Amino acid sequence: MPINPDAVGVTGDPVRHSWTSRDVLLYALGVGAGAADPLQELELTTENSMDTDLVVLPTMAVVLGVGGTGAFGAIGTFNPAMLVHGEQAITLHGPIPTKGEVETVGTITGIYDKVKGAVVEVTSTSTDTQTGQALFTNVMSAFIRGEGGFGGERGPSGPRNVAPDRAPDHTVTYETRTDQALLYRLSGDRNPLHSDPAFAAFGGFDRPILHGLCTYGFTGRGLLHLLCGSDPARFTSMEGRFSSPVLPGEALTVNAWETGDGEAVFQTLGGDGRVVLDAGRVTFAAA
Amino acid sequence: MPINPDAVGVTGDPVRHSWTSRDVLLYALGVGAGAADPLQELELTTENSMDTDLVVLPTMAVVLGVGGTGAFGAIGTFNPAMLVHGEQAITLHGPIPTKGEVETVGTITGIYDKVKGAVVEVTSTSTDTQTGQALFTNVMSAFIRGEGGFGGERGPSGPRNVAPDRAPDHTVTYETRTDQALLYRLSGDRNPLHSDPAFAAFGGFDRPILHGLCTYGFTGRGLLHLLCGSDPARFTSMEGRFSSPVLPGEALTVNAWETGDGEAVFQTLGGDGRVVLDAGRVTFAAA
Repeated sequence: MPINPDAVGVTGDPVRHSWTSRDVLLYALGVGAGAADPLQELELTTENSMDTDLVVLPTMAVVLGVGGTGAFGAIGTFNPAMLVHGEQAITLHGPIPTKGEVETVGTITGIYDKVKGAVVEVTSTSTDTQTGQALFTNVMSAFIRGEGGFGGERGPSGPRNVAPDRAPDHTVTYETRTDQALLYRLSGDRNPLHSDPAFAAFGGFDRPILHGLCTYGFTGRGLLHLLCGSDPARFTSMEGRFSSPVLPGEALTVNAWETGDGEAVFQTLGGDGRVVLDAGRVTFAAA
Repeated sequence: MPINPDAVGVTGDPVRHSWTSRDVLLYALGVGAGAADPLQELELTTENSMDTDLVVLPTMAVVLGVGGTGAFGAIGTFNPAMLVHGEQAITLHGPIPTKGEVETVGTITGIYDKVKGAVVEVTSTSTDTQTGQALFTNVMSAFIRGEGGFGGERGPSGPRNVAPDRAPDHTVTYETRTDQALLYRLSGDRNPLHSDPAFAAFGGFDRPILHGLCTYGFTGRGLLHLLCGSDPARFTSMEGRFSSPVLPGEALTVNAWETGDGEAVFQTLGGDGRVVLDAGRVTFAAA
C-alpha cells in the first residue's frame, strides 16, 4: 500500500513519561559517561557526590520524549524492517530536570518522496507536567526503503551543515564497548537488532549493531564537553543525519568546527574514519 | 552506647519490593554478564533473543530482598561508618521470576561479642506476593568495629568451608571495569563510598571501592556457569565471608572445589591473588 501524503498534519495522542535519577544515571552510562575514567564526569554518573551536582545530558530528550511518534500509523502500512532512522534534531528549551514527568505530543510535519523510498518527519514537543513549560522538542526523520514513487514532493535536498575544509576546531575520541548496546537498550529501545545475533542476521548484519541514538548520545556528550564547558544549560540544539551503522566496540571521534557565535557544525566518525553521523549542527549559549 | 544483646529475635516491618525485566538485566550487567562477549550469556542480558529465554541470576536475591535489615535499629546506636559487611548467605527456594514482587521480613538472629567489635546477623525471608511462596532467604552478617566488650556470647568461630589442599576443580577469571561500581549501584546501593572519590577519602580509601555484593554477584555468576550448567533452577544456596576490599578494575578469580554430591567450597581472589571472598560454600541440584 502506498504512503498516504495527506497524513501530514496528523497529531498523535499525548503520552506521559516520568523518570528519576536512576534513569538519568543509566542513560549517561549508556552513552559512555565515566567509562574512560570513573572519577571524571561525576556530574553525569552520580547524584550524591560531595563536589558536584547531578545534571542531565541534553540528548536524553530523545528517550524521554518517547511516544512522540504515535501519529506514524497515519501514513499507512509498510514493512517496519524497511525503516531506518534518518535524522534526529533536538531543541532544548532549558535544562532537563533530574526527575520529572513530561507529556509529549507529536505531529507528522513532512512526508517526502525520494523515489527510492519515503521520508517521514515527526515533530514532537514535550511539556513538563508540573510547570506546564515546554522542555524540549524532537524532530525525527525516518527513511522507509521501497516506499517512494507515490507522487509526493521531493522535499529539501542538497548539502547542509557542511564541515569547513580545515582541521576541526575541537575533537574528542571515545571508545564504545562491545557490550555497549546491552546497556544502552535499558534506556528504552529494546529492538533485538541491537542485542540478538540471530535477529541481526535476519537484518543482514554479521552481529548486532549499535543504536543510532547511542552514537547520537556519545556525540552530544562530546559536544557538551567541547563547546559548552560541560554545562547542559548552555546546550540549546543539535541535529544530525545517520549515515552508517556502527558496531559496538568501535571508537567514535567527534569533530566540531565553530561556524559562528554559539554555533558549530560537526561530524562523528567510526573506528575506520568513515562518517557515521553527518551534517551535524549544534547551537550553544555563552558561558 | 553499648550494643543491646537482647535485640536478638526482634523482627522488622515487612517491606514490599517489585521488579521488572529491566531490573533483572541491569543487575546482570552490573555483575559483568555479557562484558567479555556480548554474544554470550544472552539468557542473562536480553529478554527477547530468539534462541534463549531470560533467567535471573540467583544472587539477585540480595538486592530484591531489600528492607530485610529493618530490625537493625533495635541493637542500639552506633557509628554507621564503623560497620562493614561481614558475611552473606542466600538460599533459593526456586528460580526467581523475571518480574514480580516480594514481601521481605527480617529478624535479628544473632548478636556476638568479638571483643574488637560486635557481629549482628539478620535473617530475612522474601515471599512472592502473588503465589504466597517463599522465594529466597538472605542471611546478612555485619561487623561493627569498636562495639565489642559488651559481655555477650562470642558465637561461632573457627575455620569453615576450608578449601582442600589441591588445585581447584573449577576456575574462572572475570575482569571488572574501573567504572563497575557506577553501574552496580543502580541496582540499589547508592553508598558514595563506591562512587565519590571525596567521600571514599573520608573512609580512608585512595579511590572508591567496589560493592562487596558486586564481588558476590560476579562470584555467583561464575559458580552458576561452573557448577550448574548456567541453569539458575539448579543453584540452591551460596555463602561467603568478605575478607578484603576490591577496587573496580581488578580481575576476580573464582576457584571452586567439589566437596560432595551437589556441594562445593569456593574462594574468590582479587587481581593480586589475595582472597577477597572467603569460606565460600555453594550447593546445587543435579541436572
